[in-house]
Amino acid sequence: MKVYLDNNRASLLDTQVLEAMQPIYTEHYANPSALHTPAIAARVPILEAYEKIRSSIHAKPEEEIISGFSADALHCRLLIATYLGTIITGQKNQIILSSSESEAVLETAAYIASQGCRVTLLPLDSNGIVDLSLLKQVITPKTALVSLTMVDSQTGAIMPIDEASQICAEYEVPLHSDTTHAIGKLPVDMQMLGLDYLTLSTETMHGPSGTAVLVVKEGKILPNLLLPPSNRADLVGLGKALELAVDAQAFEMEDVRELRDTLEEAIREIPQSLIVTPWALRTPHTVMVGFKGVQSEALVWELNRHGISVSAEKGHTLIAGIGQDRNYTHTLVSFALSRYTTEEEIDYTIKKLKEAVTLIREERIQ
Amino acid sequence: MKVYLDNNRASLLDTQVLEAMQPIYTEHYANPSALHTPAIAARVPILEAYEKIRSSIHAKPEEEIISGFSADALHCRLLIATYLGTIITGQKNQIILSSSESEAVLETAAYIASQGCRVTLLPLDSNGIVDLSLLKQVITPKTALVSLTMVDSQTGAIMPIDEASQICAEYEVPLHSDTTHAIGKLPVDMQMLGLDYLTLSTETMHGPSGTAVLVVKEGKILPNLLLPPSNRADLVGLGKALELAVDAQAFEMEDVRELRDTLEEAIREIPQSLIVTPWALRTPHTVMVGFKGVQSEALVWELNRHGISVSAEKGHTLIAGIGQDRNYTHTLVSFALSRYTTEEEIDYTIKKLKEAVTLIREERIQ
Repeated sequence: MKVYLDNNRASLLDTQVLEAMQPIYTEHYANPSALHTPAIAARVPILEAYEKIRSSIHAKPEEEIISGFSADALHCRLLIATYLGTIITGQKNQIILSSSESEAVLETAAYIASQGCRVTLLPLDSNGIVDLSLLKQVITPKTALVSLTMVDSQTGAIMPIDEASQICAEYEVPLHSDTTHAIGKLPVDMQMLGLDYLTLSTETMHGPSGTAVLVVKEGKILPNLLLPPSNRADLVGLGKALELAVDAQAFEMEDVRELRDTLEEAIREIPQSLIVTPWALRTPHTVMVGFKGVQSEALVWELNRHGISVSAEKGHTLIAGIGQDRNYTHTLVSFALSRYTTEEEIDYTIKKLKEAVTLIREERIQ
Repeated sequence: MKVYLDNNRASLLDTQVLEAMQPIYTEHYANPSALHTPAIAARVPILEAYEKIRSSIHAKPEEEIISGFSADALHCRLLIATYLGTIITGQKNQIILSSSESEAVLETAAYIASQGCRVTLLPLDSNGIVDLSLLKQVITPKTALVSLTMVDSQTGAIMPIDEASQICAEYEVPLHSDTTHAIGKLPVDMQMLGLDYLTLSTETMHGPSGTAVLVVKEGKILPNLLLPPSNRADLVGLGKALELAVDAQAFEMEDVRELRDTLEEAIREIPQSLIVTPWALRTPHTVMVGFKGVQSEALVWELNRHGISVSAEKGHTLIAGIGQDRNYTHTLVSFALSRYTTEEEIDYTIKKLKEAVTLIREERIQ
């Protein structure tokens, strides 16, 4: 049996997404900037994709959508644009980020710091939730940007964007959030959340990889940094994937959650296991766990021998204060289900997971 | 009847390319950097695509392939890398380009010039062929790079890369060529041509748009400039499109050429027409023509009314010395056929073209 539970890194493309993309290749292939009718027709599906993106996150028609290759690349672009726009000019002097941002984003932040800007990284608490007490202490009217991922890709932890948004509003500081792992799992409303910038990519929601968008609140302007836009067919796929993800939200919150909970209960039955983020603070499809004495990679490999794909987690979240119990260092593994996951697959996974943990622990003792 | 003759800007995706891309979405969607079997399997089609790219242009296994969004973006990256690698350090002091390069490339060259580097643009002669006499005059051992498009996208003019390569070799100067409009129309052999860098994209050869590669000769190293790589499905599509384009070369050189020649003869029968590049110096599927007194846009629109898509040409080539006859300023239109073009479509185009030219000329006189 093949069971794919690494959906927070990449996911099966929905056949409806593929069907939406196909006409761009076979029918609307003309260069949209040409003068003839096929070029004009080629603009229609792009405009429709923009509409789908807007309605999925409640963006207004005035809000600009910039496409790109990945949410990370667009996030880095936003950081550089902020640096060039308001920091280098002396208007602002600080950027505040969650410490759980991706490596590419943290590297860009480190570059900005090396140029003399104050960069503050907010730590995660022991539940994997970003700690806003530091935000309250360090934010000033001269803060150029606060940037917090909405849902952690590894733990599924839901960050308090609402609260961060209120703090930012008080100081009139723009707020950005990468909502990739939130959409389709919980409601994402750009206006309600009070976001000035929102990024998302759809490879984890059954859309094409290599496609992302940055949505810019009305009135905010970003310098053009010459990053290439995404491929047109992929942008249309992203629009469709978003629409389907929002449609499937109730299914994720009920049916997928039920399957994840079945897996989670079985995990809790395994002695000396540690689930990082509490149930109520997590998206419905994810559970990250460590088994004492069971190294992540060993478990990933052993499950893989039985056709089960999961993700070994390391780095950021540990550094950020999760799993401070040394017994669980290098043991974290993330299970990420999807709307395609079946009961049969979860039952099989539970059986093989229990066997794998026992086997690896026995081998260690010998 | 619908006739699409704008194939040098964008082209119908070959169904075989779409079939090659589909499994990346539906089967090999796992992130290739993960540890499990699906991830390892996902690397296979990528490696196969690299093989197809190498064999299409006779690149050696040691030669690095860098993927990106467009041939232009990769070309700009090469210019910046050359600037950072050898010019800023004072080792070299000059870049030589064809004046018919794209706007993005010329802008990047202008930036480098503004930083104090000597940038020489080689003009096109009245046939639309790059003039190498200036290259011989200005090249020195301190030239950092010579960059010449292999085939002009508008006229289809074939540039003397062989000769340029000999000149560059004499001074040990690296040579780059964008071969996008040459592949599948004439043989492209990276070793025979003596190229150090080769770029190509496949949207004009029935491959996916938004995908390109830069091939780097063994031993040459480029600094990583953080440009995103292309989407995996698109890279696989590019590999397949290249393979099919090379397979179809004989068909292009005989059957497509015959259709193009039928169109070309009919064009010559229209009084006061000017075909820019001589027949023997052009790729088999393209013809660029001006009709005295018939403005490009007027002709594009009139043909479009009858379902025929062609391209209005302006800017670069004119500036570069083509069509110096003032009667033909702003009259140039490019017809670019493909392996999907039919005899019926060409007969229809000839009929409508003659009517359109007559109509527009009559309207001008009234």
